[in-house]
Amino acid sequence: MLPEDALVSAIARAVGPPSGGVVLGIGDDAAVLDDGTVASTDVLVEGVHFDLARMTARDVGHRAGTANLSDLAAMGARPVALLAAFGIPAGFEDAAEVAAGMSEHGVPVAGGDLSRAPVLVVAVTAIGRAERPVRRSGGRPGDVLVVTGPLGGQAVAGYTGRVAPRTEEGCALAAVATAMIDLSDGLATDVARLARASGTGAVVELERLPRAPGATVDQAAAGGEDYELLAALPRGSEAPVPVTAVGRLTAEPDVLLLDAAGAPRALRGWDHFG
Amino acid sequence: MLPEDALVSAIARAVGPPSGGVVLGIGDDAAVLDDGTVASTDVLVEGVHFDLARMTARDVGHRAGTANLSDLAAMGARPVALLAAFGIPAGFEDAAEVAAGMSEHGVPVAGGDLSRAPVLVVAVTAIGRAERPVRRSGGRPGDVLVVTGPLGGQAVAGYTGRVAPRTEEGCALAAVATAMIDLSDGLATDVARLARASGTGAVVELERLPRAPGATVDQAAAGGEDYELLAALPRGSEAPVPVTAVGRLTAEPDVLLLDAAGAPRALRGWDHFG
Repeated sequence: MLPEDALVSAIARAVGPPSGGVVLGIGDDAAVLDDGTVASTDVLVEGVHFDLARMTARDVGHRAGTANLSDLAAMGARPVALLAAFGIPAGFEDAAEVAAGMSEHGVPVAGGDLSRAPVLVVAVTAIGRAERPVRRSGGRPGDVLVVTGPLGGQAVAGYTGRVAPRTEEGCALAAVATAMIDLSDGLATDVARLARASGTGAVVELERLPRAPGATVDQAAAGGEDYELLAALPRGSEAPVPVTAVGRLTAEPDVLLLDAAGAPRALRGWDHFG
Repeated sequence: MLPEDALVSAIARAVGPPSGGVVLGIGDDAAVLDDGTVASTDVLVEGVHFDLARMTARDVGHRAGTANLSDLAAMGARPVALLAAFGIPAGFEDAAEVAAGMSEHGVPVAGGDLSRAPVLVVAVTAIGRAERPVRRSGGRPGDVLVVTGPLGGQAVAGYTGRVAPRTEEGCALAAVATAMIDLSDGLATDVARLARASGTGAVVELERLPRAPGATVDQAAAGGEDYELLAALPRGSEAPVPVTAVGRLTAEPDVLLLDAAGAPRALRGWDHFG
């Protein structure tokens, strides 16, 4: 298990299992409440996730919105509102620009909080609703793994480009998918998370990964922040939106990334605590 | 207007008015959605809101929960879930303790996000439900201003003590209050916010403020983080929980804090950007 995932597990143990009105707690893309409310939170930190010398404040806000809305998309949830908590360093004058970038997604920014901080911190929460929330954990051996679009584009662009969350695709796939996750930390990391949550293994054929222009196979497999969706679909089911099949879930617990010759490759995506 | 409130106004202009499923947006204690969902976010930053040499990680988590649950209480909302986004400095090993402190409120911690950060950052979102959300803006001239408990205790304790949010009191007062706000930044600041949102002025008689043991009148009026509630009640109405009347809303726009001799005092609470 990656250090970040181990820390998430320690936190989940510390707070105990979901209770009351919470039907899905720590460990998925978002939390699910008993009335179909779905909520996700993400924090972007200057010097860790972005560099203000290479991204505008508006782009940082847009990216923070994408990270959260992508989590909702991975649950098959439609967003209703965003909340923003900003830590603002002395001399930073563009907090309203960060908020404006968030609001470009067309989802109302409904509230927030402000504090001083040594670096810019953008913590965003997205709240939405899902009729049938799709967990990471519902995959079954034999399910086909599909992705919604080309991968590696952010690795090529140096992680400074704008990406749209796959909201419509996620809501459409929710009708058939057994499991879903958004590709924020790279397919190599995220497919392992989906498989582990589902109690399965996985095989991915790297040559089948759709690649963004200029992306290598390794960038497509291990680059982060593409915010495409990875879904598991029952064999023989029809995807309601265009997808590319890249592999399958397996009964054997290993997660194998196979090259064109069928040999396993050792690749891993982002781990913020590795 | 305080610098912090001016920045909130600039952000509200940047993102535009609430729309879609959002019925109450930026500028109140929490956002309100059209299904009665109420959501609030708060960020605590090491070196700004707390000092790990003077508070345990668990107490920091508890405090972060209080700040959010108090915002929900001020809307008359009952909490359902907390989400936590942590920025974690190198060498800090107690993230699970922060989460454990949050969960001591008895509200499930349902999800979150982790990142590296130069100092400990704890951004918490609380999600709840209210039958009749109480805004800051509903107060009318003549309404009686009441508080739910003693003030100034955190100023006496050096802002390191534990405080419980006034959830039950807020939910009960929601049946009668025309406006409500939680006292996070000190009554002097927060009463002015409630009055400005309501389009009224206010008179507070400082000698009537209930004081925590050892607290001076100034600490009760301008100390922050007490997390008691300030509510406006129609004259002659009966409060459903014990409260202390401390003043009234007025048609004149000034906010006056009067000493025992009836002379106005110049006091102000916290402004994180002053």
